[in-house]
Amino acid sequence: MKIINTSDANFKNEFDAILARAKSDIKGVSSIVMNIIDEIVEEGNEALKRHIEKFDKWEVKSDEELLISQDDMKKAYENIDDKLRAALHTAYDRIKAYHEKQLPKSWLDFESNGTILGQKVTAVDKAGLYIPGGKAAYPSSLLMNAVPAIVAGVEEIVVCTPTPENEVNELLLAACHLCKVSKVYKVGGASAIAAMAYGTQTIPKVDVITGPGNIFVATAKKLVFGEVNIDMIAGPSEIGILADETAKPHYLAIDLLSQAEHDEMASSIMITTCDKIAELTSNEVEEYLKTLSRETIARKSIEERGAIIVASNMEEAIELMNEIAPEHLEVMTKNAFELLPYIKHAGAIFLGENTPEPIGDYIAGPNHTLPTGSTAKFYSPLNVENFMKKSSIINFSKNAIDELGEACALLADTEGLTAHAKSVRVRLEDK
Amino acid sequence: MKIINTSDANFKNEFDAILARAKSDIKGVSSIVMNIIDEIVEEGNEALKRHIEKFDKWEVKSDEELLISQDDMKKAYENIDDKLRAALHTAYDRIKAYHEKQLPKSWLDFESNGTILGQKVTAVDKAGLYIPGGKAAYPSSLLMNAVPAIVAGVEEIVVCTPTPENEVNELLLAACHLCKVSKVYKVGGASAIAAMAYGTQTIPKVDVITGPGNIFVATAKKLVFGEVNIDMIAGPSEIGILADETAKPHYLAIDLLSQAEHDEMASSIMITTCDKIAELTSNEVEEYLKTLSRETIARKSIEERGAIIVASNMEEAIELMNEIAPEHLEVMTKNAFELLPYIKHAGAIFLGENTPEPIGDYIAGPNHTLPTGSTAKFYSPLNVENFMKKSSIINFSKNAIDELGEACALLADTEGLTAHAKSVRVRLEDK
Repeated sequence: MKIINTSDANFKNEFDAILARAKSDIKGVSSIVMNIIDEIVEEGNEALKRHIEKFDKWEVKSDEELLISQDDMKKAYENIDDKLRAALHTAYDRIKAYHEKQLPKSWLDFESNGTILGQKVTAVDKAGLYIPGGKAAYPSSLLMNAVPAIVAGVEEIVVCTPTPENEVNELLLAACHLCKVSKVYKVGGASAIAAMAYGTQTIPKVDVITGPGNIFVATAKKLVFGEVNIDMIAGPSEIGILADETAKPHYLAIDLLSQAEHDEMASSIMITTCDKIAELTSNEVEEYLKTLSRETIARKSIEERGAIIVASNMEEAIELMNEIAPEHLEVMTKNAFELLPYIKHAGAIFLGENTPEPIGDYIAGPNHTLPTGSTAKFYSPLNVENFMKKSSIINFSKNAIDELGEACALLADTEGLTAHAKSVRVRLEDK
Repeated sequence: MKIINTSDANFKNEFDAILARAKSDIKGVSSIVMNIIDEIVEEGNEALKRHIEKFDKWEVKSDEELLISQDDMKKAYENIDDKLRAALHTAYDRIKAYHEKQLPKSWLDFESNGTILGQKVTAVDKAGLYIPGGKAAYPSSLLMNAVPAIVAGVEEIVVCTPTPENEVNELLLAACHLCKVSKVYKVGGASAIAAMAYGTQTIPKVDVITGPGNIFVATAKKLVFGEVNIDMIAGPSEIGILADETAKPHYLAIDLLSQAEHDEMASSIMITTCDKIAELTSNEVEEYLKTLSRETIARKSIEERGAIIVASNMEEAIELMNEIAPEHLEVMTKNAFELLPYIKHAGAIFLGENTPEPIGDYIAGPNHTLPTGSTAKFYSPLNVENFMKKSSIINFSKNAIDELGEACALLADTEGLTAHAKSVRVRLEDK
């Protein structure tokens, strides 16, 4: 694995390449996706069926066939291995407990002149979850998207997932049963996003669409933003690791690889203050690579998009990591917690040697849907608030408007809005 | 003003027209805006200057001329009328106090096996505010966008505003001085959004862009979403009013007009349970219209996009209003507060006869940047969290991973991710 030093002459170029990692080519596929969306808006189910035949290679004979039955989900749940079912329950319970702690409360605030101001928080009516299908159907994605919506109190949660050659991932169905998802549609790609954004004869128009997907799904989400809300536009997965001389190289190596195995476009970047750790980790990466079932993918990712950076001190290391703003950040140093105040941008922060990133993918509790490609500088992990929205509450008393009305009307005057000013003054005139 | 009854034969058609109000034609201007963005990305300041010459009709002779000086802002602040300055201060203080109550806290949660989970909240580094310019430059827009960013703790706040014929709105400058905005650039339209999203030689790349604007600005915001975060995509302003027989028709009328005067595309919809109130309000609207400085605009809005709906009872009225999901909702009924539980979708809710909507535009405290066109079903008012983001915190103890690690590895196995599973098991193997 490539080792570079912040004092290298070409370091800035190398680092700029890391910062420019994995930009998605949304522009390149925009016109294709726009056409797909237009077809769904104009034709509804008929277009959906045509797209399924084209992309998923099976023929949908009736509208009913778009829907997976409750019974199939229940059977899938009952048929899975007991240990696996228990693991799913453990994950579900922990994810639920964490997200319940995020729940915002409505509030009111009272002023002595009788004014009441506040904020009412309500769940959206309908949420649509997109879950990639086929072999890459991850039941963990379903849990991570459904549970925040459930905790938020969303009344209607629907799922769209492609079923190539009409084959359904049983584990995904089992997870749907566990989450009590009422409607799962066998629809994938940009068509599914369009269907949930605009509605068809079968699929309801929702208020929020969340969930991972390929470049077509990401582009469709961006294009329907405004018609519905979306969580974020996600790119390839990535990990950053901060390590000092106390970190264990074999932990560092396997954790770097756990991102690399996702995708050839994934990035695994370690920044360490210790030359020796850099070298030992690089060697361990080579050893572990040979043992992975997804060796080819992981190797390409590590070689083309991986790097170990040796920094002159932890301050410099953190500064660089804040610029990278990684999706996942592991801190493997002797005083991990004490570095938290200085870590500004990361989707999720994993502290200490017993917190490997995969713990957060499945079972810790926090969401695994995280901002990638430096967007942790402004996006948050998927959370209950993605499925909620706020309304301001304003209640002025007669005393309050008498006290503040004239200042308000004056500001309206200066903006040339006479009806605004008059609507306040007409109240001031009433005694 | 048009009065319709929910029992009318064509009510459904009339109501569908209200629901379909004011869709913005983002698609229609997308290709123009894409070209503007491309030019800014490729040429930076040179393209900015060309666009200013074309759209704002003045020649920018140097990069420095893009910036308004601190001195000019200070002078503008000192030169305004004392009463107006005091009104701006009152507005600033109240907006600040309200938004401070929104501030989310970082939190940690501890489990008995040594696990620590939490959420760290941090401000974004840089925010860019877009404020429309020329005659429509509203100082209130500056306050409503700058204060949440200030309260969030954003270190660098920049403003872009167009200055047609190089004329700057003095009141806007005064408000910038009050908010201690350090950098105000004389740049408008889609070019300004592109400049803040990608950066130029003079204008910094920001993390979040907020603020109102025309269809070109709205489209540019949508197109740069993902490169930066944005607040929402806003359309024409709108008000909904729920009124019973206790409401005062002249209050209702002037409040309806306070939205109508904004824009010919604005919508003013009242739903009442009382025939007589409907008729009296319609008459009052006609009377007030004649007195408005913006009569032509307001009249067109009221005639083409306004309506008074008579519902058979308050339950039906609220149900219809929830479907409309208006930007502003006034509740003028005898028990306004008791209706709050049933009101699901509205940007801001104004309760009682002493809370006219303009109070919320200027001085009440809550933000006046609100979701329009039914997007209150999923968007929130602009708030401090638009300028903040979260990072999950995960710290597992050795006990915790020993307890939960195998379930985690099992889930990774079923998803075929061997490095994920190994990164957990390598810790389990260590005693």
